[in-house]
Amino acid sequence: MPRFALKIEYNGTGFSGWQRQSDQTTVQGEIENALQRLEPDVPSIAAAGRTDAGVHALGQVAHCDMVKDWDPNRLMGALNYHLKAHAISIVACARVAPDWHARFDATERQYRFRLVCRRAPVTHDARLVWQVGHGLDLKAMQDGAAHLIGLHDFTTFRSVMCQSKSPVKTLDEISIVQADYPGGQEFTFFLRARSFLHNQVRSIVGSLERVGAGSWDPDRMRTALEAADRSACGPVCPPQGLYLSHVVYQDDPFIG
Amino acid sequence: MPRFALKIEYNGTGFSGWQRQSDQTTVQGEIENALQRLEPDVPSIAAAGRTDAGVHALGQVAHCDMVKDWDPNRLMGALNYHLKAHAISIVACARVAPDWHARFDATERQYRFRLVCRRAPVTHDARLVWQVGHGLDLKAMQDGAAHLIGLHDFTTFRSVMCQSKSPVKTLDEISIVQADYPGGQEFTFFLRARSFLHNQVRSIVGSLERVGAGSWDPDRMRTALEAADRSACGPVCPPQGLYLSHVVYQDDPFIG
Repeated sequence: MPRFALKIEYNGTGFSGWQRQSDQTTVQGEIENALQRLEPDVPSIAAAGRTDAGVHALGQVAHCDMVKDWDPNRLMGALNYHLKAHAISIVACARVAPDWHARFDATERQYRFRLVCRRAPVTHDARLVWQVGHGLDLKAMQDGAAHLIGLHDFTTFRSVMCQSKSPVKTLDEISIVQADYPGGQEFTFFLRARSFLHNQVRSIVGSLERVGAGSWDPDRMRTALEAADRSACGPVCPPQGLYLSHVVYQDDPFIG
Repeated sequence: MPRFALKIEYNGTGFSGWQRQSDQTTVQGEIENALQRLEPDVPSIAAAGRTDAGVHALGQVAHCDMVKDWDPNRLMGALNYHLKAHAISIVACARVAPDWHARFDATERQYRFRLVCRRAPVTHDARLVWQVGHGLDLKAMQDGAAHLIGLHDFTTFRSVMCQSKSPVKTLDEISIVQADYPGGQEFTFFLRARSFLHNQVRSIVGSLERVGAGSWDPDRMRTALEAADRSACGPVCPPQGLYLSHVVYQDDPFIG
């Protein structure tokens, strides 16, 4: 069966996350429904990252096996036609080798998190950002974040539901950028790693927000990490500011 | 009665425009409903620009007369509390002179229009941009737009429903900026004038899109303008890319 890689953008607001569930509307479920309109016996699809309810994607990647040898552009167009009732868009499609795997071949995941500081409620970006009513100290958050770079036991910043075998991961980047936002300020967090633990990004950003607000000293990020204890984590921040932005492969299937 | 100026942001998607209508959900109607929760006999409010259904605002301005001498920050907070079910946010509030008028004292209106060129449907910005599936030529649109700057009879670019006494207006600026958009390109149009005719921005952007797509020669913007004939206009573009972004006053009530 010819295998295709799909690059997928979605607004996670209306979905119970990525993973198919029998009684919920999910991103995987809707894409598989669309695929079944094209070929009735399409097997289940696999994705690079299983995003939670309310989490968005700019560049989720999944693969699917088809019976017909589709032209990738036609497959993309046909899927988007059947997905048009949903905030899901296939933004790229490429033919890949039969053993290529969206999850196992990924060498890096990139997430970004949008945090807006403003007193008046946001309207255009409602459900696209996490909003707080107070200001945040960029330098303090950057200092706090620096403690997490590198190879660590991330037990503190990991959901108790996490199914990953080991809590030891290498975090390659956390950078934070501040920009003007109408009537306030926006902070965007960029995180890169080969793989992430469940709720890792939201646990880290939620803790860094405490640093930015002045409730936590930046050094508390280090002591929280070293505790390797979930109860040392700050509040897990809400999902609506989080985006799976990019997945890296040794040979990018969508280029060339 | 103390008079207050309100700076208002809204997502126009769920509203039948600004203006109060007895049987429709409108922005003015919801703000007046919120004001009546605070003071039962608040008179009708007046706005700088009456936006159409689906049109958004970043900086609409209106004024209201209250019985109580509210602290502006408390009035803003109380209004936002009662507006929280709606995509309307009061982003600034200031006490103004009793004869200050949001509409008549405005010396300039600024609009922006977001146009995204991409084949795959947009998800995060659905209803926040106008999307077309083909590319556009920036230089051609800029050349076409240049014909409209200055004092002209804008009959061609004016709705037949327009209630303005004269079609003669001065357009102070149309600039167009191109930027990368995930998987495509975004064109943002910036327009400035003392006042605009009904549907003027959407008539201009819809015609310039024809220029950008190559269907119209840039010079056709000049001949269309000179015709002073509504039938010479290109297609009026949809409302969802349009934002009332800023209103200028001799003395900005929101500064100082």
